[in-house]
Amino acid sequence: MPTGSKSKKLVNSERLWNDLMSIGELTQKDQPYTRRAFTPMFAQGREWLRTKFVEAGFEVSQDAAGNLIGKIPGTTAGAGTIMVGSHSDTVPSGGRFDGVAGVIAALEIGRVIKENGIKFKHDIELVDFLAEEPNVYGLSCVGSRGITGNLSSESLAFTEPGGEKLSEAIKRVGGDPERISDAKRSDIKAFFELHIEQGPILEREKIEIGLVTAIVGIRRIEIVFNGEADHAGTTPMDLRRDAAVALAETIVFIRKIAEEFAVIGLGHFVATVGVVEVQPNAMNVVPQSARLVIDARSESRELLDRFVEEVTRSAATAAESYRVSCDGPKILSDSIPSICDNDLRILLGNCAKDLGLTTRELASGAGHDAAFLSRVAPAAMVFVPCLRGKSHAPEEWAEPTALAAGANVVTEAMIRFDAI
Amino acid sequence: MPTGSKSKKLVNSERLWNDLMSIGELTQKDQPYTRRAFTPMFAQGREWLRTKFVEAGFEVSQDAAGNLIGKIPGTTAGAGTIMVGSHSDTVPSGGRFDGVAGVIAALEIGRVIKENGIKFKHDIELVDFLAEEPNVYGLSCVGSRGITGNLSSESLAFTEPGGEKLSEAIKRVGGDPERISDAKRSDIKAFFELHIEQGPILEREKIEIGLVTAIVGIRRIEIVFNGEADHAGTTPMDLRRDAAVALAETIVFIRKIAEEFAVIGLGHFVATVGVVEVQPNAMNVVPQSARLVIDARSESRELLDRFVEEVTRSAATAAESYRVSCDGPKILSDSIPSICDNDLRILLGNCAKDLGLTTRELASGAGHDAAFLSRVAPAAMVFVPCLRGKSHAPEEWAEPTALAAGANVVTEAMIRFDAI
Repeated sequence: MPTGSKSKKLVNSERLWNDLMSIGELTQKDQPYTRRAFTPMFAQGREWLRTKFVEAGFEVSQDAAGNLIGKIPGTTAGAGTIMVGSHSDTVPSGGRFDGVAGVIAALEIGRVIKENGIKFKHDIELVDFLAEEPNVYGLSCVGSRGITGNLSSESLAFTEPGGEKLSEAIKRVGGDPERISDAKRSDIKAFFELHIEQGPILEREKIEIGLVTAIVGIRRIEIVFNGEADHAGTTPMDLRRDAAVALAETIVFIRKIAEEFAVIGLGHFVATVGVVEVQPNAMNVVPQSARLVIDARSESRELLDRFVEEVTRSAATAAESYRVSCDGPKILSDSIPSICDNDLRILLGNCAKDLGLTTRELASGAGHDAAFLSRVAPAAMVFVPCLRGKSHAPEEWAEPTALAAGANVVTEAMIRFDAI
Repeated sequence: MPTGSKSKKLVNSERLWNDLMSIGELTQKDQPYTRRAFTPMFAQGREWLRTKFVEAGFEVSQDAAGNLIGKIPGTTAGAGTIMVGSHSDTVPSGGRFDGVAGVIAALEIGRVIKENGIKFKHDIELVDFLAEEPNVYGLSCVGSRGITGNLSSESLAFTEPGGEKLSEAIKRVGGDPERISDAKRSDIKAFFELHIEQGPILEREKIEIGLVTAIVGIRRIEIVFNGEADHAGTTPMDLRRDAAVALAETIVFIRKIAEEFAVIGLGHFVATVGVVEVQPNAMNVVPQSARLVIDARSESRELLDRFVEEVTRSAATAAESYRVSCDGPKILSDSIPSICDNDLRILLGNCAKDLGLTTRELASGAGHDAAFLSRVAPAAMVFVPCLRGKSHAPEEWAEPTALAAGANVVTEAMIRFDAI
């Protein structure tokens, strides 16, 4: 039995790549690359995966939350589980890497374990989590919520526009929503997820492996300014109550404060005003109302709180300057940052170093299944560089060598973790 | 025969008001106050007016451009015409004053002339111009364009969404588009238009009569910023190409420069960013493109030129700051400022003073039929105060005394002009 520390079992880079490209072909033909959760195309992807899992010799099952699991039983009863995986669903017109690269990496890792006859004390589980991306039922991370006991009956009652409940959709793909609590796990000793970075940092710094420190909390904040719809020609500048100018001044401030917070030394911070709406939006009418929605993300809740305070102050000042009222900031949603496990991150870093790979720590600005897993188990993520930081788009791209490097780091970390 | 200078023939304030309220009732019932040009409701309003014109003893006709004209022939052949009027059409959900107050004032002025047996050397014409407001054919000031030779065959070919040509619509309401050049007049010696201010200046300063110096030129300017649609969570602040921030900074600048130009001493200046559009307008995506449309109005073309220069410079700076490209400023439309006739304005001011009314000069920030009339004849406008400067809205309001005061000033000016 290998001790792990000097094992360096390497994945088959070409096989990993070919499998990834093969499942990528399972896309809506008119809208590459689309394999949205709960659709027939998703079911085809799942069937393809199931076949691969069976061929690899895994024990294949699906849990009550609809997660597809390939298992390699461990040698020591009660040692618990080392889990590795990600998700195979995509956004509409997404790419061939976000999510599924981590699933195919898990498949390849499992094959390396089986082929090399590596014996683990822990059970090994290779997982395709159900429905990580936003979907028509209005709930993301369905499978990782379920596996961590975070799929409430309220959530299961969410309904898509056609009237189907999320619970019915989970049943349709092979889950068992009536026994959803059966999906909840307490035996996971370590969780690993490989994912493309979806950002430009690793590529820019020519780093091979990103060691994720935290998955940011996301706060969505709405501000509405209400002024008066006056005639654009006849209303003198000093008598206007122009909601759009207050909005504009607030957007400029948000950018400025976000730039400051990003370099303050408290980790990842970004803020985006992605939604901007002006009413009545007519050339010859002074804007009566103006709405913006901020997406602010940070590892630090304190920083997010300070951000909201600063924006509140600035919006009030802008409103006063332009004689409009300010409704908000209103918090539309607020997800808690997830801290990745320190020990697992150090372990991954050591493995990468021993494999001759460069690393850096970084936070994840996007949400991941690992955020839910971290609530019930030590969880860690490995990022691999992706082209120009692009994601959720057909041009999403990661190099075969980059993916193999990430998978090798995870394999090595699993072996060493098992040997502890 | 009255010499005019001491005549002070006064309009019947109550009759003027009652007529104005009566035609106001001719509105789409579900959308007060709506009497859009070329609609059946507009035809009802025209029929009501025609009857009133006939009852008052005017010679009633309609010209080739569809203008409804009530005539009181003068005593001296070849003396030419004194014309007074405005328009009876409204915007959707407009008010009971914009336009039609000037038509009812003309009706009342004609009645005063007839009832008092005042003999004019000039022909007097009381006019309801066709389709001053924007309409489904995409051309405003149809009648005043026609009467001044500014209705081109290209314009007559404009088509509403249902497929009807503007020329067909003009024919339908009684005009003769095939002989449109017949509408063009060269005999107008003076044109007067009474209108509500549509702005807050007279009310704020408690002035009874506004003497219009000029009708502003309107320049519509489009600017589009193009950046990159990146992930709102994973793209660091310093690597973004956020089009919305460049847009926001430009809007703030436009407000600032417009405030400066408004008090520079070169007359009326306003600039409005009424149209703001961001793409893809999604919470979690850095804005890829952002579009704004400016409506800038001034009596001074030089000021408008300087404004465009300043905005061009500022937009380029904003684009550079946020690493986006700037498409524009692109001039979408550019109407020439119209100067009201100096002598007629002085005459109107003297008449007002003699009637014991307070006056001030001011520019019109909105377009009017008088702008076209000024191309072929001395033209002048009298503004009366309106409540809170509101216009193009059901709450549009002017006091009966204010309207009568304005009509009295125009009557007196017509009498004195005729006597010169």
